[in-house]
Amino acid sequence: MDTQTLTITDALNSLNRGDITPQNLAEACSRQINRLNPTLNAYITVIPPEDALKAQYPAGTSPLTKTLRNVPIAVKDLFDVEGIRTTIGSRFFADHIAEHDAFVVDKLKQSGAIINGKTNTHEIALGITGNNPHYGTARNPWDTQRIPGGSSSGSAIAVATGMALGALGTDTGGSIRIPASLCGVVGFKPTRGRVSTRGVFPLSWNLDHVGPLTKCVKDAAVILQVISVYDPIDPFSIRMLTGDYLGHLVDDMEGRKIALGTGEFIETSDPEVLNAVREAAKVFESMGCRVEKVNVDWMRDAALANKTMTQADGAAVHRERLEEHPDWFGEDIRRRLEDGAKTTSTEYILARRTQSEVRKRCELFFESYDLLLTPTTPIAAPTIEGHDAVEQAGRLTRFTAPFNLTGLPALSVPCGFTKEGLPIGLQIVSRAWGDAKALNAGHAFEQATDWHKKFPVI
Amino acid sequence: MDTQTLTITDALNSLNRGDITPQNLAEACSRQINRLNPTLNAYITVIPPEDALKAQYPAGTSPLTKTLRNVPIAVKDLFDVEGIRTTIGSRFFADHIAEHDAFVVDKLKQSGAIINGKTNTHEIALGITGNNPHYGTARNPWDTQRIPGGSSSGSAIAVATGMALGALGTDTGGSIRIPASLCGVVGFKPTRGRVSTRGVFPLSWNLDHVGPLTKCVKDAAVILQVISVYDPIDPFSIRMLTGDYLGHLVDDMEGRKIALGTGEFIETSDPEVLNAVREAAKVFESMGCRVEKVNVDWMRDAALANKTMTQADGAAVHRERLEEHPDWFGEDIRRRLEDGAKTTSTEYILARRTQSEVRKRCELFFESYDLLLTPTTPIAAPTIEGHDAVEQAGRLTRFTAPFNLTGLPALSVPCGFTKEGLPIGLQIVSRAWGDAKALNAGHAFEQATDWHKKFPVI
Repeated sequence: MDTQTLTITDALNSLNRGDITPQNLAEACSRQINRLNPTLNAYITVIPPEDALKAQYPAGTSPLTKTLRNVPIAVKDLFDVEGIRTTIGSRFFADHIAEHDAFVVDKLKQSGAIINGKTNTHEIALGITGNNPHYGTARNPWDTQRIPGGSSSGSAIAVATGMALGALGTDTGGSIRIPASLCGVVGFKPTRGRVSTRGVFPLSWNLDHVGPLTKCVKDAAVILQVISVYDPIDPFSIRMLTGDYLGHLVDDMEGRKIALGTGEFIETSDPEVLNAVREAAKVFESMGCRVEKVNVDWMRDAALANKTMTQADGAAVHRERLEEHPDWFGEDIRRRLEDGAKTTSTEYILARRTQSEVRKRCELFFESYDLLLTPTTPIAAPTIEGHDAVEQAGRLTRFTAPFNLTGLPALSVPCGFTKEGLPIGLQIVSRAWGDAKALNAGHAFEQATDWHKKFPVI
Repeated sequence: MDTQTLTITDALNSLNRGDITPQNLAEACSRQINRLNPTLNAYITVIPPEDALKAQYPAGTSPLTKTLRNVPIAVKDLFDVEGIRTTIGSRFFADHIAEHDAFVVDKLKQSGAIINGKTNTHEIALGITGNNPHYGTARNPWDTQRIPGGSSSGSAIAVATGMALGALGTDTGGSIRIPASLCGVVGFKPTRGRVSTRGVFPLSWNLDHVGPLTKCVKDAAVILQVISVYDPIDPFSIRMLTGDYLGHLVDDMEGRKIALGTGEFIETSDPEVLNAVREAAKVFESMGCRVEKVNVDWMRDAALANKTMTQADGAAVHRERLEEHPDWFGEDIRRRLEDGAKTTSTEYILARRTQSEVRKRCELFFESYDLLLTPTTPIAAPTIEGHDAVEQAGRLTRFTAPFNLTGLPALSVPCGFTKEGLPIGLQIVSRAWGDAKALNAGHAFEQATDWHKKFPVI
């Protein structure tokens, strides 16, 4: 069984038909982990198949639904899984065992999913390289000398290599979409408030989002359907009708009005990346969409405000640890947290004012357009060596971070390769609560192209 | 004509019947201003009747509606009125002439209202005494040795004495409701986002609200109907259906579930105040409401977080003035802005986390209750002399500030008097966007009582 190419939908069909057993599937993923994890460092904690299968339902009960029954799913090591350690990629939490499942982990278990491990993350989720000094350097399966992107590095690697059929990540400035883009998989950041963050270690109480990484958009929709349940206890969860994400995957894009982001800021991208995104826009045109070039230089201020807030928010969350053991943080993290702690309330408030202005701007923007297309990242995966982690974060989050600031749903789907054979990601953004609209566009794009069916040979 | 007792509704009826002319009415208000303003300092800038009548419509046009046609309205000196100075109660803006009407001033003019002046405010709206070192000490018409409350001091005095039939104020920690309570008039802070703040000088981009002060709840509903129009340009304006505030004034309170706030924090109030609020709760019981005592000690942390944010937000707004001419600020304001500027981003972010938690708490609270009753202020109007302005602000905003933090609609209506003959205010709070529900309850209370028909003899 080739778990690298197997989608969740196909796996569920095979399981239902009895072509494969839950044990077969769990062990097939396990073999990929055993074979590749020593090189790729995708998992911080592996849950062996026998343990994972035992823990899949609350003791002695059956799952409430069968939506993900027996599907191996990996979760970033920020999500609490009962009885398993949650390190958040940090030395401080090396021995921290979770007492309860995170709200969304509970939802996964209730739907029958098997949690097969906790994936590697840029330390405390504040960075995008996945070069973790405490738990090993995560590596890109397309080229192990390159970064996989982060901070949900391990989740993207696990999906790209079939160590799991899907994964959860978190995204504060692009941490789901960037590794999805760099590893050639699908990553989706839903509307802020759509998915509970309870039991997920915070980086920012203001900008964190939880979402899926998968092989295709349909799989992302299946997972989102399971986890997007209103949580009355999470202060950031917003009561909205849960969307019918699968029901909206209807492919018909006729007449949709699509803005293709242009201008100086977007053009800081590599020509290869820009070209792939322009080609993707043509695919939408061929489906009957009306595509219009729109200057989005306002994204620059939005990305800067997101950076100011993320660093200050992270410094607030980690204030006691930063005071007591600054040396326990990696060098890049310490530098960013110290910068964050020095942020004045005036600087923070001005960033927040930008946040309000950009939200309003996007509200008006999406009255005129259904979707916005941009590159997910301005470059494909850079090498591990020879770059400063903080500078890389500034560079790679520039197109993703604006949509953390605004809380808008944003999807990354593979849309091509560089001459060197590295994946390129297309970002599809929609209005607040228009999650289904972004997913539908991504699904339609997949029906018209084959980029999501390419996998790294490793 | 006694403008002190005249409601907006009665005035409109008299004007329509031809019993009075617009000139009569404008001049009657003007006489009150001329007679009382030298003592009470309610207005910073008076617009003489002939000028006000001339400016009432955009040149050469008729108002779009007649909702407030020829009704004299005062606006706090934070609202821009074209061609008139906006001082914000500050030395920095003594000569600042507004070029455009604030969004809500434009709406008032479009409804035919006559703007008869700019009312006194605690300097930059950061305080509650109304003791303004640049434009004179605002005084309480019930006892001129006492404060009128603030920061919308002049707006409350103008309404209580018939210098205007209604007024606009702003409210960042209680600045509409506190002077309403202390001067024995009605003050309403609508849901945050309901009313545009464009053209209104900010104190906080996060906590400012615009709302009416009037003699009765029905008048407040009339003004709210005019000003609660979605403003696509104001970054803080939220697109919601405009409520039908007047249509909801139906008085029927049968079966409404009302929480009467209790606990240590509420009981920091004067016994006379507590007693008046308990009696008010009985009035609601007599209308068929189910009243339940509920501990609201969580309001303490909410009030503190609001204070932290307000000071830091104010310091951000005034950062350049504070740097260039700290001596141009009054002593209490300088002290608070300097404190605000020293706030670290971590302190600010923790206050913001409290904001998120309290919002969620209130969301759940108002799933169980229709309304919450508390005193508006823990004491009636204190004397001008013998108190520190900053301490007074902390004391008098404690019950109002939590609902700036949460953005919930909150109404203050007169509900009794102290033995010394000073008005006591009842605060009625409802869920987000439940503005009509709070107004309806206030209106029903007025139908069952006569407190709103008492006026200061001066």
